[in-house]
Amino acid sequence: MNNFQFYNPVKIEFGKGAVDKLSSHIPAGSKVMVTYGGGSIKANGVYEAVLNALSGFSVVEFGGIEPNPSYETLIQAVDLARKEKVDFLLAVGGGSVVDGTKFIAAAIPFEGEPWDILVKRAEVKSAVALGAVLTLPATGSEMNAGAVISKRATKEKFAFGSPYTFPKFSILDPEYTYSLPKNQIANGTIDAFVHVMEQYMTYPAAGLVQDRWSEGLLQSLIELGPKALENPTDYDVRSNLMWAATMALNGIIVVGMPSDWATHMIGHELTALHGLAHGVTLAIILPAMLNEMFEEKKEKLAQYAERVWGITSGTTDEKARAAIVKTEEFFQSLGVPTHLKEYGIGDESFQTICNRFTERGWTGMGERRALTPERVLEVLKKSL
Amino acid sequence: MNNFQFYNPVKIEFGKGAVDKLSSHIPAGSKVMVTYGGGSIKANGVYEAVLNALSGFSVVEFGGIEPNPSYETLIQAVDLARKEKVDFLLAVGGGSVVDGTKFIAAAIPFEGEPWDILVKRAEVKSAVALGAVLTLPATGSEMNAGAVISKRATKEKFAFGSPYTFPKFSILDPEYTYSLPKNQIANGTIDAFVHVMEQYMTYPAAGLVQDRWSEGLLQSLIELGPKALENPTDYDVRSNLMWAATMALNGIIVVGMPSDWATHMIGHELTALHGLAHGVTLAIILPAMLNEMFEEKKEKLAQYAERVWGITSGTTDEKARAAIVKTEEFFQSLGVPTHLKEYGIGDESFQTICNRFTERGWTGMGERRALTPERVLEVLKKSL
Repeated sequence: MNNFQFYNPVKIEFGKGAVDKLSSHIPAGSKVMVTYGGGSIKANGVYEAVLNALSGFSVVEFGGIEPNPSYETLIQAVDLARKEKVDFLLAVGGGSVVDGTKFIAAAIPFEGEPWDILVKRAEVKSAVALGAVLTLPATGSEMNAGAVISKRATKEKFAFGSPYTFPKFSILDPEYTYSLPKNQIANGTIDAFVHVMEQYMTYPAAGLVQDRWSEGLLQSLIELGPKALENPTDYDVRSNLMWAATMALNGIIVVGMPSDWATHMIGHELTALHGLAHGVTLAIILPAMLNEMFEEKKEKLAQYAERVWGITSGTTDEKARAAIVKTEEFFQSLGVPTHLKEYGIGDESFQTICNRFTERGWTGMGERRALTPERVLEVLKKSL
Repeated sequence: MNNFQFYNPVKIEFGKGAVDKLSSHIPAGSKVMVTYGGGSIKANGVYEAVLNALSGFSVVEFGGIEPNPSYETLIQAVDLARKEKVDFLLAVGGGSVVDGTKFIAAAIPFEGEPWDILVKRAEVKSAVALGAVLTLPATGSEMNAGAVISKRATKEKFAFGSPYTFPKFSILDPEYTYSLPKNQIANGTIDAFVHVMEQYMTYPAAGLVQDRWSEGLLQSLIELGPKALENPTDYDVRSNLMWAATMALNGIIVVGMPSDWATHMIGHELTALHGLAHGVTLAIILPAMLNEMFEEKKEKLAQYAERVWGITSGTTDEKARAAIVKTEEFFQSLGVPTHLKEYGIGDESFQTICNRFTERGWTGMGERRALTPERVLEVLKKSL
């Protein structure tokens, strides 16, 4: 196990009616900016519940944060928050709104051009306090300090994070997920699943608890995904799905362990260039990446085959191959096709993607930096 | 899943040489009181490493905190800290030192008689900041806000906790555990194992991740315990054991789930009245308690049998019974006898223990309050 630091101070309020606790977590007298997305929260009652819970606070609103939140949109929120002298940001929505709000929080007090936080990795030295009311189980952003922000103008995605951008709290009410469209539940389940895989599917590295906990999350998601699609109002299912997605990316399963993240890096480019939903890109890239990196990952793949899929017979290679097939079939069983051609996409952007990685100086991605730009091209070909 | 709040802001510094990070976690200019136990830290180099890391800070020392730390000892530390106007407490040792230091931290600013924190559950409204350098994987105190304090005069144990008594940080260097006596490693492994069981072995309650994570910890401890005894300087084993013990009681595996804690309650009395080590009392009581509560727990016991012990054949009852036997054999395999008579103890204190529970108004313990004082007597008889 490698040396590590673990720290996660996010307070979670979980359960039915958890929004009732909202006001107790925001300092009295705060001027609160409520941030949200396309307005689904106004249709499903969440908006009203949040504003009711905020009675007594001075409230400013900023709506319209899009999926894969853009710098262009968020900087408008920064301007508004500065003008209104906002003390607290409350993100109400899914991972895009939470991610976007983290950027707003860091950008408000930032001296200089906030864009530098993303492209120059300029140090974030403070942030406005933020909290979240989550409506979509998927990204885990509600319990970590990271965010992914897009620039529409250049079709690029950038990740950033800072100890200052942990939400102070997140409100997780599983009933808020009942009204989500099926494709968002499917994509969210896949996003959480692949978050675990990015932190787990590397090579054996002597982290017993980390491996068992990752495997437990994967087993849970495999059990929960189909049930969540079948019966949207099963509280047991939705509460477990929400909690699994939160646990998948709060840092606890990866402490002291190698991690990969190549699937996300390649997926981000497919989103930026083709507009595919994030979860969809992961369902396409993960199986292709596992096949390309088979020799490097087969030992851990065989462990995954045994412990997660119950595949106990065959050689290491056979078990590993079977587990990749099972993984792809799981994504498909959620109604998510796993090949680019099924979305009408060919190889037109492949070279652009590889060039982007090369231009960024990324000679190799993954846990051992073995996925070179040349091998990224092979992954993309396998994903056709 | 029940509604819950989860919050754990303890920063963990884990790994070889982690003590080098110590000074970065204590506010500059603090007057630090270093608390420790019987002096083993002076024999194994930890004391010297800590004091070196604290160069630049003003340091006061308080040694002599005993296993099952006593109010009588700790109140002397409170007096010293008040006199010296200490700003920060640094516990260096195992769970007893960390527990004791939490009490010191809460008692220093407490207005009134600190004893009331324990017996009257008086509200803790503040505490001096504390951190820990852990030397023994066992109690999990390094990553939670709770503590158990004994009163020697009356042979009683009291639990307390407060959001103010979370350590600000804990330093976990697995190499610090190399010099521990075997019985402390065995008892510590059992303590961590039973912590998980107290939070897991109840009834099926639809917490998929919570169950999987508990089972993962149990599987890990079963694998690690014997190895840790065989080779005290295997870093992979000791680092995993240390991390498993920390994860066993930081709150994450029990969110939204029922918990038991009857084994600890009964075990505490055996420690208080007979001086048995904490882990030893748990090894004695858990199997007896599981047999007494068999009907109430057999469904979850059968799940535990399947997932943790790989017992897949037989009826629910048969699997459940077999799992209890396996559990007891595991404790014995670590060199810890599981019956009172093996420690020369008979039934002389049984009625006293039951009377104590009755006097406290505890009509029933466990997840459904079904373990009445009469059934505690049955547990004790089974533990003979």
